[in-house]
Amino acid sequence: MAALKLSLLVLLLLSVVVLSSSVVWGKQDPELKQCQHQCRHQKGFDEEQKSQCERRCEDYIREKKERERRERERERGGGGGEEESYYGTREREEGERVTERGPYVFEEEHFETRVRTEEGRVHILRKFTEKSKLLKGIENFRVGFLEANPNAFVAPVHFDADTVFFVASGKPTVTLLREDKKDTFNLEFGDILNIPAGTPVYMVNRDEREKLFIIKLINPVSLPGHFEPFYGPGGENPETFYKAFSWEVLSAAFKRDRDEIERLFRQQKRGSIVKASRQQVQELSRHAEGGRGGGGTIWPFGGDTGGPFNLFRNRRPTHSNRFGSLFEADPSEYKQLEHLNLMISFANITKGAMTAPAYNSRATKISFVVDGEGFFEMACPHVSSEQGGGGRSRHSFERVTGRLRRGVVFVVPAGHPLTAITSGNTNLQILCFEVNAKGNVKYPLAGRKNIVNDMENVAKELSFSVPAREVDRIFRSQNEEFFFPGPTQQEQGGHRAYI
Amino acid sequence: MAALKLSLLVLLLLSVVVLSSSVVWGKQDPELKQCQHQCRHQKGFDEEQKSQCERRCEDYIREKKERERRERERERGGGGGEEESYYGTREREEGERVTERGPYVFEEEHFETRVRTEEGRVHILRKFTEKSKLLKGIENFRVGFLEANPNAFVAPVHFDADTVFFVASGKPTVTLLREDKKDTFNLEFGDILNIPAGTPVYMVNRDEREKLFIIKLINPVSLPGHFEPFYGPGGENPETFYKAFSWEVLSAAFKRDRDEIERLFRQQKRGSIVKASRQQVQELSRHAEGGRGGGGTIWPFGGDTGGPFNLFRNRRPTHSNRFGSLFEADPSEYKQLEHLNLMISFANITKGAMTAPAYNSRATKISFVVDGEGFFEMACPHVSSEQGGGGRSRHSFERVTGRLRRGVVFVVPAGHPLTAITSGNTNLQILCFEVNAKGNVKYPLAGRKNIVNDMENVAKELSFSVPAREVDRIFRSQNEEFFFPGPTQQEQGGHRAYI
Amino acid sequence: MAALKLSLLVLLLLSVVVLSSSVVWGKQDPELKQCQHQCRHQKGFDEEQKSQCERRCEDYIREKKERERRERERERGGGGGEEESYYGTREREEGERVTERGPYVFEEEHFETRVRTEEGRVHILRKFTEKSKLLKGIENFRVGFLEANPNAFVAPVHFDADTVFFVASGKPTVTLLREDKKDTFNLEFGDILNIPAGTPVYMVNRDEREKLFIIKLINPVSLPGHFEPFYGPGGENPETFYKAFSWEVLSAAFKRDRDEIERLFRQQKRGSIVKASRQQVQELSRHAEGGRGGGGTIWPFGGDTGGPFNLFRNRRPTHSNRFGSLFEADPSEYKQLEHLNLMISFANITKGAMTAPAYNSRATKISFVVDGEGFFEMACPHVSSEQGGGGRSRHSFERVTGRLRRGVVFVVPAGHPLTAITSGNTNLQILCFEVNAKGNVKYPLAGRKNIVNDMENVAKELSFSVPAREVDRIFRSQNEEFFFPGPTQQEQGGHRAYI
Repeated sequence: MAALKLSLLVLLLLSVVVLSSSVVWGKQDPELKQCQHQCRHQKGFDEEQKSQCERRCEDYIREKKERERRERERERGGGGGEEESYYGTREREEGERVTERGPYVFEEEHFETRVRTEEGRVHILRKFTEKSKLLKGIENFRVGFLEANPNAFVAPVHFDADTVFFVASGKPTVTLLREDKKDTFNLEFGDILNIPAGTPVYMVNRDEREKLFIIKLINPVSLPGHFEPFYGPGGENPETFYKAFSWEVLSAAFKRDRDEIERLFRQQKRGSIVKASRQQVQELSRHAEGGRGGGGTIWPFGGDTGGPFNLFRNRRPTHSNRFGSLFEADPSEYKQLEHLNLMISFANITKGAMTAPAYNSRATKISFVVDGEGFFEMACPHVSSEQGGGGRSRHSFERVTGRLRRGVVFVVPAGHPLTAITSGNTNLQILCFEVNAKGNVKYPLAGRKNIVNDMENVAKELSFSVPAREVDRIFRSQNEEFFFPGPTQQEQGGHRAYI
Repeated sequence: MAALKLSLLVLLLLSVVVLSSSVVWGKQDPELKQCQHQCRHQKGFDEEQKSQCERRCEDYIREKKERERRERERERGGGGGEEESYYGTREREEGERVTERGPYVFEEEHFETRVRTEEGRVHILRKFTEKSKLLKGIENFRVGFLEANPNAFVAPVHFDADTVFFVASGKPTVTLLREDKKDTFNLEFGDILNIPAGTPVYMVNRDEREKLFIIKLINPVSLPGHFEPFYGPGGENPETFYKAFSWEVLSAAFKRDRDEIERLFRQQKRGSIVKASRQQVQELSRHAEGGRGGGGTIWPFGGDTGGPFNLFRNRRPTHSNRFGSLFEADPSEYKQLEHLNLMISFANITKGAMTAPAYNSRATKISFVVDGEGFFEMACPHVSSEQGGGGRSRHSFERVTGRLRRGVVFVVPAGHPLTAITSGNTNLQILCFEVNAKGNVKYPLAGRKNIVNDMENVAKELSFSVPAREVDRIFRSQNEEFFFPGPTQQEQGGHRAYI
Repeated sequence: MAALKLSLLVLLLLSVVVLSSSVVWGKQDPELKQCQHQCRHQKGFDEEQKSQCERRCEDYIREKKERERRERERERGGGGGEEESYYGTREREEGERVTERGPYVFEEEHFETRVRTEEGRVHILRKFTEKSKLLKGIENFRVGFLEANPNAFVAPVHFDADTVFFVASGKPTVTLLREDKKDTFNLEFGDILNIPAGTPVYMVNRDEREKLFIIKLINPVSLPGHFEPFYGPGGENPETFYKAFSWEVLSAAFKRDRDEIERLFRQQKRGSIVKASRQQVQELSRHAEGGRGGGGTIWPFGGDTGGPFNLFRNRRPTHSNRFGSLFEADPSEYKQLEHLNLMISFANITKGAMTAPAYNSRATKISFVVDGEGFFEMACPHVSSEQGGGGRSRHSFERVTGRLRRGVVFVVPAGHPLTAITSGNTNLQILCFEVNAKGNVKYPLAGRKNIVNDMENVAKELSFSVPAREVDRIFRSQNEEFFFPGPTQQEQGGHRAYI
């Protein structure tokens, strides 16, 4: 009974999530809107020219933003050279060392457009190490997302990279062509699917109203930090790799005339994301297996078969209270993650709440804001250079902070204490890829359990230079775990001044 | 019975291979011949001076070729800086993007001579990353070969690298000095032997007529991409590492007088590959174990014991038809490869035939042409820069092609479609080291099985923008698998214009 | 009975070690002494100012030494740029190629001071690759040591690195805060403890007279080759990471007033190593588990529980004779080392003795001299460039040598032959971290067993170009294994000229 009630609760929760995430991503900039409006009403442009014009608007705006950001940073003395001064900009208020965003936060302008058609787009975050050498440890990971209209079809492609999908909205029917069989899965919100490098994959958004939004973690297998799409079935756009072979060779390989082959590979010009008819969508999704996996009733959980795993369905959150809940897919449940040394979690922080300050012992967390607004604060070790003293320097910490909103990516390196705080009127939802997950432990720094409470009184006194009871007064007041009520609105107001 | 017949067939095939590969490698350049001729007839030169002179000829010719190659590339506008434009040269015929060789093909001039004596030589390909950063993923692998005369002895040496041997011709008797025992193996064509880093190894070519030719894959354990030979038993040439110690220390270590020790280490001056007498060869090979391994009758297959494994003996090809056969030694059969995450395969493509276009899902293939002539075509993703459009660029593929002949090395990165086509009058034989082999799948792109045939009709139509039956007409005509009849002679002729 | 006798012998040996290593480390420079003397007697300085002054003395002296070293090298033509000429300085005596120290030896001036208080200090060796690209293979390892006074308390801290401790002197009581429990261990000489990344750890030296000296091998998990300390419990010095959060956030997290929190985190100013009272020490060590582990009577050996392992207690040396003994903790005994692919050994070379020249097949050895004096000789492959000859060059070996004394670190790459020789009047004691230990084999080059004795007579004759009996006369005289009597004093005298 208890399990049933919980499931209902979770389903209720999810439906809220699903509805809210059906809103369109990005494209909120007024300047962009106006530019694109002009494109659409430009006389003499055909559909393709209009579409191309619109895309250029977006590129233009993104570049402009990036340029402005760099200028802002230069003026603040941080220097565009993020490589040189480890943390971009620096502001000091009341003697605090506060860094806005630093090398750990990525917004719209840090993504590059890999695909854009009438029906959808693929954006990939630039290499982490392009931003800062502090991210060298995750150099071989890339993050990106795919957005596609209702009923859009995404053409078959393989990558020289392992890719993990997380379905954030829409209902994709995904087909993987394996060595010896074809696997088709009807996925939905919360499904995680691992697509091994080289596997041809295609999909259709079988949802008729909701946009498809898939967040991807990409792990190149061939060239560290770089990957490419390889389109086989296709034509001129997406350009098929078959056309790279000479006609003589293709003719021999297919045992057909050159003309006939040429004709086949000349037709597709609509790009790699195209519109499918309702009937075509039904055809593609009809024989699919339902999304399997998710702890609880179904066995096996799908992990070993190469199928999907649902982060929410029939599963309990690892942590949950009035202020938020955390769902985790760990390698022991979903075997494919073990191979990738990866853990995936989803935090839903209630409006007005915050996460306990905490750190991961060895995993580095690559976080993607799925919905809501807020900000984070992270403690970053910073060797201040103004202490002089010939080579030795005093060790201190800097606050790195950043505003969170849909589409923002932020990285939390191992050992770095972090807290995320909601603002605005909705829950803050964050998807986390935790790489180097094996043996990782989350250490909470406040709340019912924390790293100080377990210490002997003598150790507390020696560490803080105050009587143990004064330490306890601070560390034993908060009785919640993992999710806490957030700072009051007024206090947040003070915060907003600099975030 | 069927198995016996097959074995006979294979043996027959092999004998052809062995005979044909006994021809001398390299040294076909007339200018080189003349230069060396002059050395040999130079008055006043003793044997060592003549030999040194001959070696200088070779170095001179190789450098000249390398210089000429760079100049050719510069003229074509590819720019010597292969690092900058990803693919060396670029030619456009009928709007095609074709690159000759690019960063993936290596010929004579890319090797460096590590050893050269009267009796043999060792050539090692330069670091892959010296040619292109696109090869960063295989940075820690090196490829090379050892060639030695009949009855030549190769002096004891250890390397700070794991080394895999493939015997391409000759009959080496190889001795490994392990921690607690000595292992001696009589090897022959097709034998694979793993020599763990640090293991002292020496060998003799017990064949009295055929040159020894061993292809090596080298995996440094200490300094990424770099390795060195360490000669213990030796003297002045090869210089023994014992001589790096001070005489006082050696004297204490050996409990002998300095003079006596000095005398011992002063004798050997003939280099690390020397001539052995017939009697010495017999002595060395007498107590050897026969080559073990090879699937079928003998158990265990040698894998776990650290012994050799024969790629052909008592084994069936993975793929075989009139147009070629493929033999594979995979980690499950030969345990030592598992450790190295390596697969070794040998393709024998019949004269006039070709391999099916195909790609490896995650392995990168380092190929060494053992015999025959031909060419390859590979589809390489190429982000063309002339599309403009502010950061976003259209994705397309470039054909990288290269001529194949004995001694050419070419690299096929994961995910890249490739086909190899014979030319000339002999079979084309290629040895492939597939690194990062775990979980690798070969995806054929044409033939009875291919990535398109399995797709639903709807998916074919959406992908190609033509009716499914038109797709099927192309993709279902070729009924062979893996090896096909090649393009007709006439068509090849057209090809040769640019290869 | 025999086992008991051995244990007694070992205990006796250890007591000598412990006593001798209680001497103060470093601080022997007379100039430094004088500088610090002036600080202590400076009028008008309070205790903190005096202490700060003393630290500056040390930094000044270290920098001066480093500067002088560079100048010396520049004068010798080695060029400060160690990166360019692979081996620092070069001297030629009687045609020998001898390099003093080269890129493999590290002394006081190569360490940086990370912590220094009245009660102790932490010194970390700079990144290996800062010295030479030849050390790229161990780029992600760092070495350091912690020294603390009797009864000193080392404040709680976690690192973004795995750390292995070796207790060289003193008696630390170490507490690890795990995810779900607290582990406290009373350690002593010879104890090895693995502290996984992110684990908060604190300790007290419960010895009332002996300084604590812990040697550390550090393996960063997040940013290759870099790691940082994260102090939670603390205040202004060590600065706690809690203070990096905004007061609003801390107030919400702890459910306490900002003032109260601020007060707590303002008290600690004494640094991360502070004096504890005798009573506090007793309190901290009372509930500790005794040091567990060490082969023999106790089961399980502690390895799997995450506890310590003693290299000496109840264990036999791997090699032992009158001239020295070697203790090894290999991964099969202490499971935590398996994870780290690490082997730890401790060589105690008797006064007047030497180790057999030998090499490791695949491990790279990072050695820390714990006590005694001596020197080493290592054979390093060196491609001499003056042979001309167009790209091909003759392969030879260079002797790299260096003086060994307390605190010196030297690196022995895989495959490189090395011998260590004592000088002075005490045993030479060396702690070795062998990284990349899996499958490693030690190959002795002289003594009863060596790589030459196993060879067939024919192979000896072909390798050395002399009759086999002459080879045997040299290689079969020394009957000892692993530890030999050293060169006579007179011969050492000759040596000292260049070391």
